[in-house]
Amino acid sequence: MPPTVSQSTTLPRLPVDKDEELLKRIDHWWRAANYLAVGQIYLTDNALLETPLTLEHIKPRLLGHWGTVPGLNLIYAHLNAQIQRRDIDVIYLAGPGHGGPALLANLWLENSYSEHFSHVTRDAQGMQRLFRQFSTPGGVPSHVSVPTPGSIHEGGELGYVLTHAFGAVFDNPDLIAAAVVGDGEAETGPLEGSWKGVNYLNPTRDGAVLPILHLNGYKIGSATVLARKSDHELDHYFRGHGYAPVFVAGDHPDAVHRDFAAALSRVLDQIREIQRRARHEGIETRPVWPMIVLRTPKGWTGPKFVDGVAVEGTFRAHQVPMSGLRAHPERLQQLESWMQSYQPEELFDGQGAPRESILALCPVGERRMGSNPHANGGKLRQPLQYRPLETYAVEFDEAQRGRELHGSTERLGQFMRDIYVDNPHNFRLFCPDEVNSNRLGAVLEVTDRCFMGPFDDNDEKLSMDGRMLEVLSEHNCNGWLEGYVLTGRHGLFASYEAFVSIIDSMAIQHAKWLEHACEVSWRASIPSMNYLLTSTCWRNDHNGFSHQGPGFIDTLLSKQPQVVRIYLPPDANTLLATARHCFGSVDHLNAIVIDKHPQLQYLTMDEAREHCRVGLGIWEWASNSGEAEPDIVMACAGDTATQETLAAVDILLSYLPALKVRVVNVVDIMTLRLDHPHGISQEHFVELFTAERPVVFAFHGFRGVVHQLIHNRPDTERFHVRGYQEEGTTTTPFDMTVLNHMSRMHLALDALRYLPEQWENAAELIEDLQALLQKHHRYIREHLDDIPEITQWVWSGGKIELPLDQSDRER
Amino acid sequence: MPPTVSQSTTLPRLPVDKDEELLKRIDHWWRAANYLAVGQIYLTDNALLETPLTLEHIKPRLLGHWGTVPGLNLIYAHLNAQIQRRDIDVIYLAGPGHGGPALLANLWLENSYSEHFSHVTRDAQGMQRLFRQFSTPGGVPSHVSVPTPGSIHEGGELGYVLTHAFGAVFDNPDLIAAAVVGDGEAETGPLEGSWKGVNYLNPTRDGAVLPILHLNGYKIGSATVLARKSDHELDHYFRGHGYAPVFVAGDHPDAVHRDFAAALSRVLDQIREIQRRARHEGIETRPVWPMIVLRTPKGWTGPKFVDGVAVEGTFRAHQVPMSGLRAHPERLQQLESWMQSYQPEELFDGQGAPRESILALCPVGERRMGSNPHANGGKLRQPLQYRPLETYAVEFDEAQRGRELHGSTERLGQFMRDIYVDNPHNFRLFCPDEVNSNRLGAVLEVTDRCFMGPFDDNDEKLSMDGRMLEVLSEHNCNGWLEGYVLTGRHGLFASYEAFVSIIDSMAIQHAKWLEHACEVSWRASIPSMNYLLTSTCWRNDHNGFSHQGPGFIDTLLSKQPQVVRIYLPPDANTLLATARHCFGSVDHLNAIVIDKHPQLQYLTMDEAREHCRVGLGIWEWASNSGEAEPDIVMACAGDTATQETLAAVDILLSYLPALKVRVVNVVDIMTLRLDHPHGISQEHFVELFTAERPVVFAFHGFRGVVHQLIHNRPDTERFHVRGYQEEGTTTTPFDMTVLNHMSRMHLALDALRYLPEQWENAAELIEDLQALLQKHHRYIREHLDDIPEITQWVWSGGKIELPLDQSDRER
Repeated sequence: MPPTVSQSTTLPRLPVDKDEELLKRIDHWWRAANYLAVGQIYLTDNALLETPLTLEHIKPRLLGHWGTVPGLNLIYAHLNAQIQRRDIDVIYLAGPGHGGPALLANLWLENSYSEHFSHVTRDAQGMQRLFRQFSTPGGVPSHVSVPTPGSIHEGGELGYVLTHAFGAVFDNPDLIAAAVVGDGEAETGPLEGSWKGVNYLNPTRDGAVLPILHLNGYKIGSATVLARKSDHELDHYFRGHGYAPVFVAGDHPDAVHRDFAAALSRVLDQIREIQRRARHEGIETRPVWPMIVLRTPKGWTGPKFVDGVAVEGTFRAHQVPMSGLRAHPERLQQLESWMQSYQPEELFDGQGAPRESILALCPVGERRMGSNPHANGGKLRQPLQYRPLETYAVEFDEAQRGRELHGSTERLGQFMRDIYVDNPHNFRLFCPDEVNSNRLGAVLEVTDRCFMGPFDDNDEKLSMDGRMLEVLSEHNCNGWLEGYVLTGRHGLFASYEAFVSIIDSMAIQHAKWLEHACEVSWRASIPSMNYLLTSTCWRNDHNGFSHQGPGFIDTLLSKQPQVVRIYLPPDANTLLATARHCFGSVDHLNAIVIDKHPQLQYLTMDEAREHCRVGLGIWEWASNSGEAEPDIVMACAGDTATQETLAAVDILLSYLPALKVRVVNVVDIMTLRLDHPHGISQEHFVELFTAERPVVFAFHGFRGVVHQLIHNRPDTERFHVRGYQEEGTTTTPFDMTVLNHMSRMHLALDALRYLPEQWENAAELIEDLQALLQKHHRYIREHLDDIPEITQWVWSGGKIELPLDQSDRER
Repeated sequence: MPPTVSQSTTLPRLPVDKDEELLKRIDHWWRAANYLAVGQIYLTDNALLETPLTLEHIKPRLLGHWGTVPGLNLIYAHLNAQIQRRDIDVIYLAGPGHGGPALLANLWLENSYSEHFSHVTRDAQGMQRLFRQFSTPGGVPSHVSVPTPGSIHEGGELGYVLTHAFGAVFDNPDLIAAAVVGDGEAETGPLEGSWKGVNYLNPTRDGAVLPILHLNGYKIGSATVLARKSDHELDHYFRGHGYAPVFVAGDHPDAVHRDFAAALSRVLDQIREIQRRARHEGIETRPVWPMIVLRTPKGWTGPKFVDGVAVEGTFRAHQVPMSGLRAHPERLQQLESWMQSYQPEELFDGQGAPRESILALCPVGERRMGSNPHANGGKLRQPLQYRPLETYAVEFDEAQRGRELHGSTERLGQFMRDIYVDNPHNFRLFCPDEVNSNRLGAVLEVTDRCFMGPFDDNDEKLSMDGRMLEVLSEHNCNGWLEGYVLTGRHGLFASYEAFVSIIDSMAIQHAKWLEHACEVSWRASIPSMNYLLTSTCWRNDHNGFSHQGPGFIDTLLSKQPQVVRIYLPPDANTLLATARHCFGSVDHLNAIVIDKHPQLQYLTMDEAREHCRVGLGIWEWASNSGEAEPDIVMACAGDTATQETLAAVDILLSYLPALKVRVVNVVDIMTLRLDHPHGISQEHFVELFTAERPVVFAFHGFRGVVHQLIHNRPDTERFHVRGYQEEGTTTTPFDMTVLNHMSRMHLALDALRYLPEQWENAAELIEDLQALLQKHHRYIREHLDDIPEITQWVWSGGKIELPLDQSDRER
């Protein structure tokens, strides 16, 4: 027995569960699941070992992670017993999801697998198919993943099992998410940061997370931090996080079964009691939630030694504990002995079906963890109820286009406020402490920020009843929302644009989930992940360089077209129409990018709806080319880009009235992409951008994005893109566009540069624009703010004058 | 006094420091720093309040974060006293780096600021400049950042202060990194995951991190999780992490000064004792390190109320606690009273210089935290010593090009092994538990994995003395290496390619740091951040979809060209030459992408050196076009891409001997980019890729990367790029290239498709290639492995046959 596996002596012994018959069933189930896992790793045939094993029965490539499997199986078996006894609603999240064979084994035993994949029957033939398909071409992944029934958690990238579990149980009062945390995963930052979920979990209306920390002692190559802590230090650690841990440790199956059964029973009693008290007597303070720390050997019940080298209970049991069978055929016998040690004839009948003692442990129907509808959350999805967008729209006379400032995100806040009211149990906003900063504060009129206390007199809009979630952790915000949508509910994650890159990899993994789910027929569509990226690079002048980063667009761009959507609404009404579309969509990652500061407003609500439906279009009111081919196309995507483009056009129309200019605004940038479902036809593209006229394109993000999007469009070299560039100087709002060479002056200069012919007065205008750039540089250093005539600019339709006097021109 | 601020009663009272004179100096320093911080936020002029404040003295835009400032100042003042008393080497890392005015104030007081920026003198005029430059155009950022002397930690994106601190003190035995952790930041996952640094810190050879958790109770809008925990729960939390916390709380300056001075003295004693014992008596167990928890009101000493609303000690003190002075001119008086409350005449003399009581607290020279050379680590940089690359190179006869398999990363492991030997104090390898998996295990011949125990019998290559760092946390690996290079040392972070995206945002922020540092003349060049991305997408067939992601390239691509470098060496010798270059480079982020499995080898060491020096080139030995213009260019970047391209060329040469093919291999993909320092000239580009011939380009990552890189190159539409696409099926190694349409069959088919004319036998070859794709699909499902003739292919120079028989062709 390795020295780290020891019964805690600092904690009271648990009462012994007396149900010996039940423990026997549990042991049978566990042995059966272990047998089936070994079979998946090694065998293509002879699943029931009806003949002596030969190399022909062995897979050519041995893949999979055995080390974590026995623990995952043990927990599954015991949870089954408790589900049966208590008739409770439990889903199983496997943090060490690399142990895919474990989950697949249990799913097959409970028949959930055959019900989802009818060719993998619960008999000898099905068992052989289960084995053969594991991690082989055309088969199933070696990790818990999308095609694993009962899963909402991909077992590849580690760190998110607790955030997913908390997200799943928010507003699901009867659900228990049993979350197995591996001791490797427990070393990651995101996992350590996710224990704090209990500070946001209200037992009166939320379900419960039951964390089970499974310490098997090793990562791939060495010790894990938590496994090497004493029980005493671990007890401190979890009490510090707000949990009361129960310790179970051992390497003797009977003793571990007995202790784990008692521990599980005890913690489920505690959860029930916390919920009962909160729901019947009210709640004053954050409960101390139970959890389990389970210490068992890595690769338990596997080969103790291979060629004299210790394997069970060491890091060497991490993946395939005994390989090289073709070079070492004597290991065939050791493999067969290993599999026989589970006594398969006691577990499976002559046809390969599980025997009655195992079936008797199986919960019924949707109580089986592999068939629980919460883990196929689209089945429970209820569309949101909305009020007409006109309720929130900016109303204005068409003559006032581009002349009034309104906060666009404020309108979205009002929209979400009423969504909260009209959908009291299945919509949540997640945000890293920035809801007010991002001007979404209207939601606080109808719900508080959730926090489980304690409170003080200076708190505002903070209560246990709150259903808006603010935590200074992008990982938690994102993981909670993932858990929430994967279980069929709706929401939005509002982030500072720059800091959403903190969860790049989580978004990538969720995109992969959705991409894979398209191919799995029984997965019901789930609500989309909606991202609001605000406090954008163009208005983070004061916070500086670290707060400027539009790279999330680049991250999404490489994902499969059917899954990702990127929207850049330029004003409040297009934002509302975009958000309405995103909230109603399924199976996407939608990123909406818009700043929080008051903005000029361009489109009526009806126009905005149509603009968003098509995704891009000519703004006739800002163009003077009419039906004619324009001399130049001024394209824009993004709020600041749109404003600067319009201001540039205003200058051009004012100074060069004969010039024919067309303004094209893009909300849905995927329309530009030829190989995207939203991509417009080449004909439509030419209708908008012409076939050969120069295009000055002002883009919110990095300009390489546009270069990628327009690949294979006609004559792409005529597109002159300006976008965000990395520049690190402290500045004013308008100066950001100057620094990034995307100011109205730069855009107008571009137009003049790329025009095919010289226009009367163009040289003079070029000089004035350059003088204005120089004046701006001087002015902001003297006045510490922008030139008012620039920042107070509104659309004039070609009737403005540049704020220059003779001295500016003469410098 | 807010209820959360209370002296812990669960802990023993600390001894009172008796040095009243010292405490008085500390208070003076603190008040002076607070005064200077308020001045930076509000004033453009009248720095010493020599006349009554008017609106003309007030900045037009009020920016900055006041809430955290008084705490940061308090800690700085007290550290000065201890540095003086003990003559110790301390750097200051401000987790709440938003409080930039605090650090700037202290730097100005100690004269470090004037020594770095001579126009900001330590007198009235300099004070006015200090105020005016803060967060104004052409001035300085509102956060602690690159132009802040004494800083190695940008205060923008939260979460990394402890990882940076640990990285800074590894192998710096005499250095103490005082790391202030804000209670907002403490909620992030990466921060919570970084307390575990003590499990990897060996006091015999490493310095010490002194964490000071500053609990001021609030984020922007609501409570923080840790601040609302009781001292009792916090004590559990930190003991669980392996620390012994000392608590200081209060809102009365004298009492807090007294308690904090005593606490600081005590913890520094404890650090010294831990180090003394370890260095003189040896070390058996991980020490319990001291830390401080400091509870003071947010915005302490600022306005208690503004218009009757509580501000001090609430979330409203987070940023500018009192604004709108133009609308509320009566607040001018309140601001003046606030600033006068610090009694500036007691702090500054008539010329605005700090008075003697303050100067007396100032450490001398490089002991000042703003002048400590560790915080301008390039000053301490010692170039690494290397042995000749021939020591590790793959040697082969030219006739054996592309015919031998060798592990490329194994050679890099051997190279790093000797770097460890030859540079025992300034090189480290960081890896999330994958050093052996990534075949870099040779380093374990000369150093162990570091771990502070306890140990067990099954541990291998794990000891306190180890200097290789394996922790299952990409955030820690990256943050530690950042801290290590920012203090002038060298290293490499080896990651699974897909999971390096976990630290996308950290890499982005470090790139921003380097971009900004180019503009700060006194920042000495620091060693580059080197990333090895291995276990790549093309060989993660078995681990599946979640383990496939080349998106880090996209993330780096948008950063400034002078900072980022991306290398795709195709074999061992080019890997060695690339790594050698990266280890010797400064001020870059270098990403090296190569898989860990045995690979075909193409270039001799000399050839590899030259190939890496130029960055790309024609492989004459694999081309048959000689001096002539080829019919087609087969370009490739990346190991698998290169192998498949060569195999495709081998097919083409075998079946269409008259076809003129040129192979161009790209190691340094930035050479393709016109606007990059490494970008080759248009002439050189045409020499390689011709001006108009079709180019089939096999690229390791997402193909949009190449579309971006070749923007503005001649006739880009003739480039037909194949790259990694998102496909989620379980498969075999070679099948990954088939699924991603980048197999030799696809590349050969592309060549045939894009050739300007039809070649004899081309139609037959097309049919054969399609038949082979179909055979492959059938074969792997039957045999669960690839067709041997395909995976065992070696370069034949045009003498191969496709593994097809008549039945394959007839299907």
